[in-house]
Amino acid sequence: MSNITLGGAEEIIGAAHEHAQAVGKAVSVAVVDAGGFPVAIRRADGARPLTPDIARAKAYTAAVMQRPGKMLKKWQESQPVFFSQLSQLPGAALPILATEGSLTIKKNGEIIGGLGIAGGTADEDQQIAEDVLASLGYELEFAAWGVAGAPTADHGKDI
Amino acid sequence: MSNITLGGAEEIIGAAHEHAQAVGKAVSVAVVDAGGFPVAIRRADGARPLTPDIARAKAYTAAVMQRPGKMLKKWQESQPVFFSQLSQLPGAALPILATEGSLTIKKNGEIIGGLGIAGGTADEDQQIAEDVLASLGYELEFAAWGVAGAPTADHGKDI
Amino acid sequence: MSNITLGGAEEIIGAAHEHAQAVGKAVSVAVVDAGGFPVAIRRADGARPLTPDIARAKAYTAAVMQRPGKMLKKWQESQPVFFSQLSQLPGAALPILATEGSLTIKKNGEIIGGLGIAGGTADEDQQIAEDVLASLGYELEFAAWGVAGAPTADHGKDI
Amino acid sequence: MSNITLGGAEEIIGAAHEHAQAVGKAVSVAVVDAGGFPVAIRRADGARPLTPDIARAKAYTAAVMQRPGKMLKKWQESQPVFFSQLSQLPGAALPILATEGSLTIKKNGEIIGGLGIAGGTADEDQQIAEDVLASLGYELEFAAWGVAGAPTADHGKDI
Repeated sequence: MSNITLGGAEEIIGAAHEHAQAVGKAVSVAVVDAGGFPVAIRRADGARPLTPDIARAKAYTAAVMQRPGKMLKKWQESQPVFFSQLSQLPGAALPILATEGSLTIKKNGEIIGGLGIAGGTADEDQQIAEDVLASLGYELEFAAWGVAGAPTADHGKDI
Repeated sequence: MSNITLGGAEEIIGAAHEHAQAVGKAVSVAVVDAGGFPVAIRRADGARPLTPDIARAKAYTAAVMQRPGKMLKKWQESQPVFFSQLSQLPGAALPILATEGSLTIKKNGEIIGGLGIAGGTADEDQQIAEDVLASLGYELEFAAWGVAGAPTADHGKDI
Repeated sequence: MSNITLGGAEEIIGAAHEHAQAVGKAVSVAVVDAGGFPVAIRRADGARPLTPDIARAKAYTAAVMQRPGKMLKKWQESQPVFFSQLSQLPGAALPILATEGSLTIKKNGEIIGGLGIAGGTADEDQQIAEDVLASLGYELEFAAWGVAGAPTADHGKDI
Repeated sequence: MSNITLGGAEEIIGAAHEHAQAVGKAVSVAVVDAGGFPVAIRRADGARPLTPDIARAKAYTAAVMQRPGKMLKKWQESQPVFFSQLSQLPGAALPILATEGSLTIKKNGEIIGGLGIAGGTADEDQQIAEDVLASLGYELEFAAWGVAGAPTADHGKDI
């Protein structure tokens, strides 16, 4: 298996929407495959018009950068110009959104897609994404950039 | 009511995917609201990577042009340069794809969104879209361009 | 296996360059993975400055459209406006170049990347690409668009 | 001679990949000619999908700006708005990435191309690039901007 299936994507999106409703938020949720192409996108009634595309860009970022947006955010803060230019590279189809609510989907050590959530606060988007992926058995640990081998314990630290 | 709900969009997409599977095709289906913003997009396993965006552009076209792509296609054939420029207008977020598999979603005489299907042949995409909207009680008749009042009987003819 | 390896890409590119030299042409050759991202690109001395990007766009097209450019060309000829708009879709990173010298890389029935060659005549680019993939054991047959199941015998015919 | 040959580019890339493997990193390496056009690009298995384009933009920057990215970085830090606008000039084909891992390729006092490496840390990318070019006999000294004559001793200082 190298790409998440539609069934897998729908399961994630359904759980994320339930979770968001439970905290009273209308969010958009996007799941893309390992190459960053959409598998499924769903906007809750009441979520703002651009949220599906924000969610999609978050999912794209986590898939093609192969790290959660929250890890990338630290890199972005230290090199803002470089980071803004990533989105202008010929192979980059969408803006690289390094922020909360952007998780790489990994199973059995293999990256199979990206998940993006938009519409709540940054913390809510992040919390929902993490809770949903954890509850469905996906792996949330990632090694720091460019490091071969096993993921580090404090994954957000050494970017 | 001015926009299709997520529930309405999911119902359409589910029916379209069932219909496509019955004819052995893997398709992507997109539903957008009356302003052309995504409500839900779903790519069947096996559908090609760009099909979700093709379906979305078809849905966008049918929503913001307020006519099915098949009606617009005749206009496009008579004014290809003008038509290609539509996609470059400041408010045009996506390419205006005037083709089969692009239907305006209308209920009680009101336009509430757009439906796009991509992945089958042009005729299959069109057939699935029409069958699904008809079976769910949406209206398929549209007046020719610039005509006030009631829809004409032969809706594809006078563009 | 879901993506061609660098070793596999280098083998293809080396063979293509040898083949091109044998017919006296300086070509650029690009191999991308199944998501359309570059694996390796090589420009022969004397090949024109834009040929690496032409080769890359041909490879991208064959990978993400999941069909050889020559098959897509017939579709493009029948729907030129639609086809030119494909390149403007949000998820399309590069122009969709439906032409000769653009082959989908397939092994054991699975699409693992795309190959693009630019710098010779259309026929030369196509011939080199076909000969190289065939000699290395890749599969050259593809079903017509949207058809599930086994590839058809005359693959370029029913688009 | 005004442009690096494919043979020269391949030698650099091969050495850079070996070096990167020795430090346990999967990197992409790009070599462009003096005009910034690609000669060869190679992505190691495991390097992220956007790294070939990051490496290429680094190589492009070092070739057309005719100075290593690390020298340009100081200029960028003092004039960030001006610098970001460089990438939007009509003749600028790619983002101007003024950062580590971006070296101008010079031999016998003549600029013949650019080298970009992406996938390691900034320091690793820089170290590999410098080591490889030095070991292959390329010149690493560049005069500060606008200064005629011989390169300065402390080349990164006076931008």
